[in-house]
Amino acid sequence: MDIGILGTGVVARTLGGRLDRLGHDVLLGTRDPAQTLARTEPDRFGAPPFARWQEAHREVGLGTFAQAAAHGELVVNATAGAASLDALRSAGPETLAGKVLLDVANPLDPSSGFPPALAVSNTDSLAEQIQRLVPGARLVKSLNTVNASVMVDPAALADAEHSIFVSGDDAGAKAMVTDLLRSFGWRDVVDLGDLSTARGPEMLMPLWLRLFGALGTPAFNVKVVR
Amino acid sequence: MDIGILGTGVVARTLGGRLDRLGHDVLLGTRDPAQTLARTEPDRFGAPPFARWQEAHREVGLGTFAQAAAHGELVVNATAGAASLDALRSAGPETLAGKVLLDVANPLDPSSGFPPALAVSNTDSLAEQIQRLVPGARLVKSLNTVNASVMVDPAALADAEHSIFVSGDDAGAKAMVTDLLRSFGWRDVVDLGDLSTARGPEMLMPLWLRLFGALGTPAFNVKVVR
Repeated sequence: MDIGILGTGVVARTLGGRLDRLGHDVLLGTRDPAQTLARTEPDRFGAPPFARWQEAHREVGLGTFAQAAAHGELVVNATAGAASLDALRSAGPETLAGKVLLDVANPLDPSSGFPPALAVSNTDSLAEQIQRLVPGARLVKSLNTVNASVMVDPAALADAEHSIFVSGDDAGAKAMVTDLLRSFGWRDVVDLGDLSTARGPEMLMPLWLRLFGALGTPAFNVKVVR
Repeated sequence: MDIGILGTGVVARTLGGRLDRLGHDVLLGTRDPAQTLARTEPDRFGAPPFARWQEAHREVGLGTFAQAAAHGELVVNATAGAASLDALRSAGPETLAGKVLLDVANPLDPSSGFPPALAVSNTDSLAEQIQRLVPGARLVKSLNTVNASVMVDPAALADAEHSIFVSGDDAGAKAMVTDLLRSFGWRDVVDLGDLSTARGPEMLMPLWLRLFGALGTPAFNVKVVR
C-alpha cells in the first residue's frame, strides 16, 4: 500500500522503517525537504540527522507534507502534537479528503515544563481538532499511548500481551488501521468507539509520563485485564 | 486499626465492609446520619438504602463526617468527587492533621452529561485540591482507577495480575496505604511519586468510562506491562 507519513522525527522514522520492511511504499513528509536533508546535527531528542537515517532506509522517500498526503492511500500524522495542525494545513485538507488518516500524536504543550501538560483535553482532543480541520478525512486515533519502538514491535514486550486502542467515526477506516496494527504484531486491539473517545487515550499521557519516570524505561504499556 | 470513611455510597460501603471483615474498627461518616438512616428508597445508582445495608454490617458504625475523621487513624475519602471538598471541610482540617488520608475519589463533573468530563485535570487534581484544603493530612491517592468491587478484591479479576497506583508526598503514609492494599490482595502496587502524580490516575477516568462502554462491564483494570 502507498503510505504517506507526516513527520521526520523518531516516531515517523520508526513507523516508516517498519512499514517499508512490511512491503509498503512509504513517503515521509516535512515542511522543507531540502532543509531536513541539510541538517547535520542530532535533533533535540538526540536522534541522528535525517540524512544519516535515510542512508540506511533508501527505499523510504522524503517530500513535502503535501506530497506525502498525495502519495498515501493511508496517511499517518506522526508530527509532534504542537505542530500537527500546521502540518495538516500544509498537507492540504482537500488532498486528504476520502483518505484514511491515522493520528498517533499527543497534544503535549512544550511550553508547560516537565512533565508537560496537555494543550487540549477533557472536553476536546487533538484528534477532534484535526477532524474539524480535515473534515473529509477518515480519521482514526491509535498508537499514541506507547513509545515508537513499542508501536511497531509490540511482541518485543511481554509477547504482545498488552493493549492498543482505536477511536474513530469510520468503521472501514478503523478496520484498515486494525489490520495494519495486526501486521505490526498487535493482538489486543480495543475499539473504544467514535472519535470523541480519543480523549481517553490522549489523557493517558500524564500517567504514561509518570510511569516513564517511575519505571525508568519507555518500553512499557498497559494491558486491559478483563 | 481504627478507620474512618467519609461517604455512605457504594464505594464507602464496599470499602467499609471489606475493612470490617479484615478486623478493622470502621466508622462511616455522612453529613446528617439521621437523614442517611431515614432513607427508604434506593439511591440514584440503584443501591439499597443505607439502613438496609447496615443490617448486614452491624459492626460498621455511622456518624458525622467529623466523627469519622476523629475516629480514624486512617481516614478514607470515599465521597463523590463533586462533594469531596465540602465533606472534608465538614470533617475538619484540624481533626485530620497528622492522619493518613486516603483519597479514592474521581473529580467527575455531574453537570457535564455522559460520559462526564473532569471538573479539574491536567495542571491540577482533586488530590492536590484536597491537600491544599487539608494541609496537615498525610494524603495518598489510590484506588480511584477501579470499580469498588475490584478495589477490595483484585484477586477476583485475573488472579490480581493487574496494577494499582499510589501518589503522595509522605513516604510513611504511602507505605501504610500500600500495606492496606496488599491486605486486599493487590500484588502490583506502583508508586508514581509525589502527590502531583495523582493527575495521571485521575485523568485515566475518561479512558475508564469508554472502556466500561466498550467492554460492557466495570470489572476490568489495567496491568502495567514492563
